[in-house]
Amino acid sequence: MIVQRIAVITLFPELFEAFGSTSLVGRAMEAGLLSLHLEALRPYGLGKHLSVDDTPYGGGSGMLMRVDCLVAALEAVDAQFVSEGPFHRVLVTPQGAPFKQSAALALSQKPRIVYVCGRYEGFDERVRQFVHQEISLGDFVLTGGEVAAMAMIEASARLIPGVLGNESSACEESFSEAQQGGLEYPQYTRPVEFRGLGVPEVLKSGDHAKIAEYRRMQAAERTAVRRADLVSVQSKGKL
Amino acid sequence: MIVQRIAVITLFPELFEAFGSTSLVGRAMEAGLLSLHLEALRPYGLGKHLSVDDTPYGGGSGMLMRVDCLVAALEAVDAQFVSEGPFHRVLVTPQGAPFKQSAALALSQKPRIVYVCGRYEGFDERVRQFVHQEISLGDFVLTGGEVAAMAMIEASARLIPGVLGNESSACEESFSEAQQGGLEYPQYTRPVEFRGLGVPEVLKSGDHAKIAEYRRMQAAERTAVRRADLVSVQSKGKL
Repeated sequence: MIVQRIAVITLFPELFEAFGSTSLVGRAMEAGLLSLHLEALRPYGLGKHLSVDDTPYGGGSGMLMRVDCLVAALEAVDAQFVSEGPFHRVLVTPQGAPFKQSAALALSQKPRIVYVCGRYEGFDERVRQFVHQEISLGDFVLTGGEVAAMAMIEASARLIPGVLGNESSACEESFSEAQQGGLEYPQYTRPVEFRGLGVPEVLKSGDHAKIAEYRRMQAAERTAVRRADLVSVQSKGKL
Repeated sequence: MIVQRIAVITLFPELFEAFGSTSLVGRAMEAGLLSLHLEALRPYGLGKHLSVDDTPYGGGSGMLMRVDCLVAALEAVDAQFVSEGPFHRVLVTPQGAPFKQSAALALSQKPRIVYVCGRYEGFDERVRQFVHQEISLGDFVLTGGEVAAMAMIEASARLIPGVLGNESSACEESFSEAQQGGLEYPQYTRPVEFRGLGVPEVLKSGDHAKIAEYRRMQAAERTAVRRADLVSVQSKGKL
């Protein structure tokens, strides 16, 4: 049974082809856990050029995505799966809330999600009235929402039960709930020496208590050095 | 003349095919401004299965990317363009510095960059000795570095002179230098009314001074409401 039906409204559905067939997302689709539906926006465009954008009222550079074309595509997605119920609508935009692991977890629990990817200078303001959530991938500017939507899909898909082969992996990585936002400890694998760089003795000792203590200390130190912002968040959480 | 040569070391080069031929990155490549070189990691693997990962010393779930295979791929990338000089090496990892617009700008100024994309539980710690920079896309967990690298490539490529058709666009969007990190003002395009939702009168007035004031106020208000964290950064920056 499909656990999550994902739709993407985009001018560039081809960007998602390899994404939808490769690696984790591809495997989850093969296993029938996920479905990825690409809704091309172009057919909802207007005029002989099927335009989906127009110039801003009040002047300014660049073009905006029209609200009417976007809403037509959103409603078409709902209509195609009408028996299942409406999709949770996510507008991918730098104006949204910054994407975090907690948002990935919330998205992983939706049965149906549609991501709206923009291009050009942005969306007509009114499209915000027709979506449930606005998410930004981060404080940087992309040329479209497609790569951002892929990141959101990947981060949430791996939290769906059964998608990751190794269940324990999902909760040991940096930024998972288990680590309360801290960074992971350093890890080593073979070869035991590479160009003069070795593996810390404790990790080869077989002493599980010492190894656990080493890792806990290293994770704390690394988080303090690299991400002091996360340390203060953790401390606050513990009050 | 190629302004930036980008290489990606990855187990899944096919993920980048559409990305490298579509939209902004594809156009920049056609125009000869960018080149995207995909270096498949698998051929650098060991044994009959060409393994690039192994179990962690000291135990733990999951597999780590081996340092020897990764360094072999990094050195092969440099060797292929040896007459141009070495590549700036970026390790894409949740342990890195969070990606921001300032990092995108710095990356846009490198003549050669190679992104190292991981899979599995993470990298052998020692690979950090062989890279110049570690960047995290944000505080969430992906299954690999590929989508994160695409975001970094897209955000930096659009800042390379000539890549965006409309030069002014690059500096009017949210999070560009010009806005000092604030959100953009709301924008509207045709139709003038959609399902009862109109366009603010001021934007239709033709009064450029009023429009500019309206936008300035709206941008400030929106930033305060949605991203109080950016307001405090801005205030600090002005001291």
